[in-house]
Amino acid sequence: MIGVMRALDLSKVYQKLEPGPVVLLTTSEGGRANVMTMSWHTMLEFNPPLIACVVSEGNFSHRALKRTGECVIAIPPAEMAEIVVGVGNCSGREVDKFARFGLTAKKGTMVAAPRIAECIANIECRVVDRALVARYNLFVLEAVKAWIEPGRAKAKTMHHCGYGRFLLDGEELHIRSAKP
Amino acid sequence: MIGVMRALDLSKVYQKLEPGPVVLLTTSEGGRANVMTMSWHTMLEFNPPLIACVVSEGNFSHRALKRTGECVIAIPPAEMAEIVVGVGNCSGREVDKFARFGLTAKKGTMVAAPRIAECIANIECRVVDRALVARYNLFVLEAVKAWIEPGRAKAKTMHHCGYGRFLLDGEELHIRSAKP
Repeated sequence: MIGVMRALDLSKVYQKLEPGPVVLLTTSEGGRANVMTMSWHTMLEFNPPLIACVVSEGNFSHRALKRTGECVIAIPPAEMAEIVVGVGNCSGREVDKFARFGLTAKKGTMVAAPRIAECIANIECRVVDRALVARYNLFVLEAVKAWIEPGRAKAKTMHHCGYGRFLLDGEELHIRSAKP
Repeated sequence: MIGVMRALDLSKVYQKLEPGPVVLLTTSEGGRANVMTMSWHTMLEFNPPLIACVVSEGNFSHRALKRTGECVIAIPPAEMAEIVVGVGNCSGREVDKFARFGLTAKKGTMVAAPRIAECIANIECRVVDRALVARYNLFVLEAVKAWIEPGRAKAKTMHHCGYGRFLLDGEELHIRSAKP
């Protein structure tokens, strides 16, 4: 059932973000939720998980993220591709994207920003470092709570290659490795 | 033929790195080349392309990158998975990884760090910002020259999910998008 979330150990958050999926980033400012599409993010530290991400000044979410210091990184499955592109092609300045794209906002447990019920993973984050915001729009986030949907553990994610071209997750490979 | 490289317009570098492939990062210090495996990287800017990446202090490459300010980001195809894991599981402190893994170093054109002939893309980079090196081992690189192998444009890349588990590129999806 879509929307059933189970807590994910914070030490495993990197396993969801390291592979570079396109994600949705939600914010909430003054009771108004917004969501943007984002592919420019990287892990910085395993545990507690630190994540660096670029939220451009041109994005309406920039202001909310800066003011509230909170967001949720939600990972959409490939089935949501049309929505992911749609969310990226309009602005929260003009539209309520949750309404327009039929996304179900689910209250965050640690942050005001909402989780997205249709997504396969939701990571609640707080901004912990703004040192490079002015120079690169780069925010450093700490994941404070993470959720996955157990029933969709094998759902495919998308990787963006520019202008709506995506590569979906394909074959899985296992090679014995000593390192995380 | 493996190793035939064609220059890639710098404005397209993001299309190679944004999807989050596992990459190899080469350095050269005092005439000695080294290579490490890396998945913690993100684009920061389109053009000139700026890339942020984490090279941990524990990595032998950290010192070389800090001292020389130069590196090459090389993107391996899925066929190199065993090598990619092998490179990540040993240190240049003890071994000559190019020799051990049979990698062909090809002189960089703008930097001293070598390109890797077996890789499908090579991006020559210079460190342009060290502000977050002390805090997060995060280097900001500028891509100064990029190369692709025209004959392997459709080669699959790998996305690391921890401990040698990879998801390879699968199905390709195109959705009309107004944005890069």
